[in-house]
Amino acid sequence: MKALVLSSGGLDSTTCVGIAVSEYGKENVATLSAYYGQKHDKELLCAKKVAEHYDVPHYELDLSMIFKSSNNPLLKQSTDEIPEGSYEDQQKENKQVATYVPFRNGLLLSAAASFAGSIFPDDDVAILYGAHADDAAGEAYADCSQEFADSINGAIKIGTYNKVWLEAPLVAMTKADVVKKGIELAVPFELTWSCYQGGEKQCGKCGTCIDRRKAFALNGIDDPVGYKE
Amino acid sequence: MKALVLSSGGLDSTTCVGIAVSEYGKENVATLSAYYGQKHDKELLCAKKVAEHYDVPHYELDLSMIFKSSNNPLLKQSTDEIPEGSYEDQQKENKQVATYVPFRNGLLLSAAASFAGSIFPDDDVAILYGAHADDAAGEAYADCSQEFADSINGAIKIGTYNKVWLEAPLVAMTKADVVKKGIELAVPFELTWSCYQGGEKQCGKCGTCIDRRKAFALNGIDDPVGYKE
Repeated sequence: MKALVLSSGGLDSTTCVGIAVSEYGKENVATLSAYYGQKHDKELLCAKKVAEHYDVPHYELDLSMIFKSSNNPLLKQSTDEIPEGSYEDQQKENKQVATYVPFRNGLLLSAAASFAGSIFPDDDVAILYGAHADDAAGEAYADCSQEFADSINGAIKIGTYNKVWLEAPLVAMTKADVVKKGIELAVPFELTWSCYQGGEKQCGKCGTCIDRRKAFALNGIDDPVGYKE
Repeated sequence: MKALVLSSGGLDSTTCVGIAVSEYGKENVATLSAYYGQKHDKELLCAKKVAEHYDVPHYELDLSMIFKSSNNPLLKQSTDEIPEGSYEDQQKENKQVATYVPFRNGLLLSAAASFAGSIFPDDDVAILYGAHADDAAGEAYADCSQEFADSINGAIKIGTYNKVWLEAPLVAMTKADVVKKGIELAVPFELTWSCYQGGEKQCGKCGTCIDRRKAFALNGIDDPVGYKE
């Protein structure tokens, strides 16, 4: 049995890589990243470094063509700024947050299923990804809910003769729990990147920075990556 | 409301384009093709010509990177030949036919959902595709079954805040019914291509040629594209 981890270079998916290596053995693990046009493509370099750290094969897909007409603020071609403030604040006007990239997670998971079947044609393959309890809270992202995860997992199982399926080992954890789990597994958090902005240091102001910072604080430790302010 | 039609240049999806134009009005229709490494990339040119015929915008995605490690006989890099004979014959040894490309339809539908949300960010969008009753029969392709279609449609609806959904207007029709419907709608079958092989004329021997030929014969008319033998 093989494990393909969707690795974005962030702390959740990097913890997933740690879990996969620990549970499946590194000889059965590969990681997969996707460039979809994101401003924070620095995360792709992080994902590569994480794979090097664990000494597992790493692959990268370029899916940016699919979103090239989108003006989503997360994307390079957008004329809009990435919003500041927590997801909760952003949702006061509209349940759907501005950084929702159309069906991005559905696409990534489907691409991972096709990729898994291509690189491991003779094996059963678990696709691990870093969805966790805070993602689904508040429905900021429709494609992060448990209902969505169950639904796309069903489609992947049916559509691959049950040879490929999804596993979300962090799904019952808060982001603070994820940091705790990562510390236990000696996950190289210093190699990760979460901020939606590019730059040398994380901005500290976007939704994902706010969540990340809080998760480290709740564990009483400093984020090894640090923030601009 | 908009309609995005997954158009492969074959007779089923071209009939879908005819239905979309007739039901949604051509000003609301766009077509989408995908290159995934298939030997029969001639179909992409056909899909383009079909869009020109109907005077609707046409888009093409390149997803071939996802399958570049696959040795599936449908793909250009494969060292295997495309099998001859009907799907039924091919299934005598194994329910899964050799030309099943890993989760291809799931990937195409997911990519279409992301693309639909990118080009029509302010609209509800129906994604039309050409699944029909014969596809699901015999389960030659796991990602052509009704169960699969329902499942991925559920995932797309949930993952897009119900703004994008799938429609399979041919799902209750046999391929012969599809030809009949196409004739009623004056669908330009002469522009289509179904054969899994490249070449000037369709081979007449692969699973899809056998099905296409029979569908025209059952309607008592000649296939305007013709066959090598």
